Amino acid sequence: MPRVQVAKELGVSPASVTTLTSELIEMGLLVEVSAQRDIADTGRGRPAVALGVRADAQLVAGIKLSDREHTAVIVDFAGNLVADEAIPRTPGAMELAGLVGATQALVESVCAKAGITVAQLSAIGLGVPGFVDSLSGIVHWSPVLSSRHAPLAAVASERLGAPVHIDNDANLVTLAELWFGAGRGLSDFAVVTIEHGVGMGFVLNHRIFRGAQGLGMELGHTKVQLDGALCRCGQRGCLEAYVADYALVREATTALNWTSRETQSVNVLLESLFDHAKAGNSAARSIFHRAGRYLALGLANVVNLFDPELIILSGERMRYDYLYANETLAEIKALALNTGRPVPKIEIHAWGDLLWAHGAAALALSEVTEGILGTTREMAAQ
Amino acid sequence: MPRVQVAKELGVSPASVTTLTSELIEMGLLVEVSAQRDIADTGRGRPAVALGVRADAQLVAGIKLSDREHTAVIVDFAGNLVADEAIPRTPGAMELAGLVGATQALVESVCAKAGITVAQLSAIGLGVPGFVDSLSGIVHWSPVLSSRHAPLAAVASERLGAPVHIDNDANLVTLAELWFGAGRGLSDFAVVTIEHGVGMGFVLNHRIFRGAQGLGMELGHTKVQLDGALCRCGQRGCLEAYVADYALVREATTALNWTSRETQSVNVLLESLFDHAKAGNSAARSIFHRAGRYLALGLANVVNLFDPELIILSGERMRYDYLYANETLAEIKALALNTGRPVPKIEIHAWGDLLWAHGAAALALSEVTEGILGTTREMAAQ
Repeated sequence: MPRVQVAKELGVSPASVTTLTSELIEMGLLVEVSAQRDIADTGRGRPAVALGVRADAQLVAGIKLSDREHTAVIVDFAGNLVADEAIPRTPGAMELAGLVGATQALVESVCAKAGITVAQLSAIGLGVPGFVDSLSGIVHWSPVLSSRHAPLAAVASERLGAPVHIDNDANLVTLAELWFGAGRGLSDFAVVTIEHGVGMGFVLNHRIFRGAQGLGMELGHTKVQLDGALCRCGQRGCLEAYVADYALVREATTALNWTSRETQSVNVLLESLFDHAKAGNSAARSIFHRAGRYLALGLANVVNLFDPELIILSGERMRYDYLYANETLAEIKALALNTGRPVPKIEIHAWGDLLWAHGAAALALSEVTEGILGTTREMAAQ
Repeated sequence: MPRVQVAKELGVSPASVTTLTSELIEMGLLVEVSAQRDIADTGRGRPAVALGVRADAQLVAGIKLSDREHTAVIVDFAGNLVADEAIPRTPGAMELAGLVGATQALVESVCAKAGITVAQLSAIGLGVPGFVDSLSGIVHWSPVLSSRHAPLAAVASERLGAPVHIDNDANLVTLAELWFGAGRGLSDFAVVTIEHGVGMGFVLNHRIFRGAQGLGMELGHTKVQLDGALCRCGQRGCLEAYVADYALVREATTALNWTSRETQSVNVLLESLFDHAKAGNSAARSIFHRAGRYLALGLANVVNLFDPELIILSGERMRYDYLYANETLAEIKALALNTGRPVPKIEIHAWGDLLWAHGAAALALSEVTEGILGTTREMAAQ
């Protein structure tokens, strides 16, 4: 981007941009590149100069821990993928020490693939499902951890010898959208993830908003029914107790006489439920229908509270089109505030685990950037 | 506040503060005053100098339009009350022209009390209940307006010859808290108002957050029950259809054989319901009990999404202590995310109509300030 465009977009003087960017060039973070010209632009004289991020300035790792497998990527400062790795695991909660040990093995493996040492990483982003306090680095509850209130970031930083930043799944997908997806063109949007649970991320003025104290945006645990369905978290009436994987499987187990299938995986059971619905089974259809209506209610509440321009629905289950059928969209319209404006655009984005890991890398990149900016601000305040 | 403290709180250099504040002093917005010293501080030498807002730099009006009466205040640039006025009105929706005419009469009357002309006002803040788009100045729906999507700000600005900024009730109370109340000590908090409807305002990093596109925070119209109770807005299952004035009166009419009392005001009916509950009437108690449980559910959803440090409950109905009894607080705790932290502090603030008008004045002051800062930024970008 040419300096003059930076000045225009930030609403500051070109002189200020020159001063600020010269510092970033000196620090080795930005680099001058030749500007791309429009075909129509036949201007002569000095070749135009633009500023770009210096890709080799930093390397970071992004890791996504989940019930099925652990995934890792290494990316450079421009977000380009350098290496990736995935290690399958046995489902279930682990002790903190075991989880950190598995993380270490994964980081060493992906670094070996990239031909670097762990010490060359500026930061590591680590994503886990559950209630994660990104600011304090504490996991209050996670299906992959057997203890509550675990100081995961501190323990992993100590073990790996590099700064580790943690966040929950939904925020990782949101960071991936912010750095590499919708966020390149939009300042504000919501991301709702539907898989084993229901998560939400929100981008406000180009930054992720985690709630005033860092533990908000738990859309899956907003209550949509007093004394309602029981949730994994132990409370009643949570949105995810009507919409998530386990909620659908729970209902299917009752109505489709699945007691003999208890040992099968959630994925297999959901596929079977989906097949039944497609074949016209009314109980199976009713399960997806109700889940779709509750999903619509949850999304309408997001509209009524956050008023986003765009909602991105993300997660594997999005291919169960009963969840986002036309009637779901009609229901959202019926439940969202009547302001005379259309309801926000709703997009379906499919993501694999590798891209969740990319989101973890975006977390590491944003922490590295914030760290550099913080140092610059402190120097200015001297 | 001394310049050195400004520098400390903003994290910028004392030199930058000196440059920036000298511009604001030149513009006549700030003034040097002698600093307050602690008793323990016996420093000699030059007397300490602090910066204060120049109270007489600007005058603004704040107006609150409601079903019962219209209220107005004039305040100076430091927020000091200069004059106030209230004009009772016949309840019911008015045409846009009539409402603007009533506003003009009120502004002229309060200006006369203050000994100034309307032309001396830098801005006017105007608060109305309903769905108000503060950015575009359009009222999409309001119980005091008979038409939808009314361009109230533009029509009122034209008629009054001064810039008019509009917002909804809950945001006015929030602005009053931000400028004159809790916001002086806290960067982030939520305000929930319970009266004829249920409203919400949210302060994020010392600024009011109205949703990404300016029409969010409609907590009263988040859905807490699929196909639930009918709301004034025409939809079903809105929180306010269980908690607001009209919801309580509707239930009372059914269970307490009140059909003969249809002509009585909501206030009289609610007082009577409250008396019945205090006297032990089980139907009356059950009405408040259910409303309290739904209020707890709504507040728990605020906690799970916004994670505020403080929730302020505001509105006349807060004296019906059934709504915020210990069991309501226990219910919030049961429905809020289990993060190991205590649930946020919940405070009850009583406000009169005059203070809502003060909030409207805060809206005018913030718009004047934003306007000045915007001009300064544009000049810097030249």
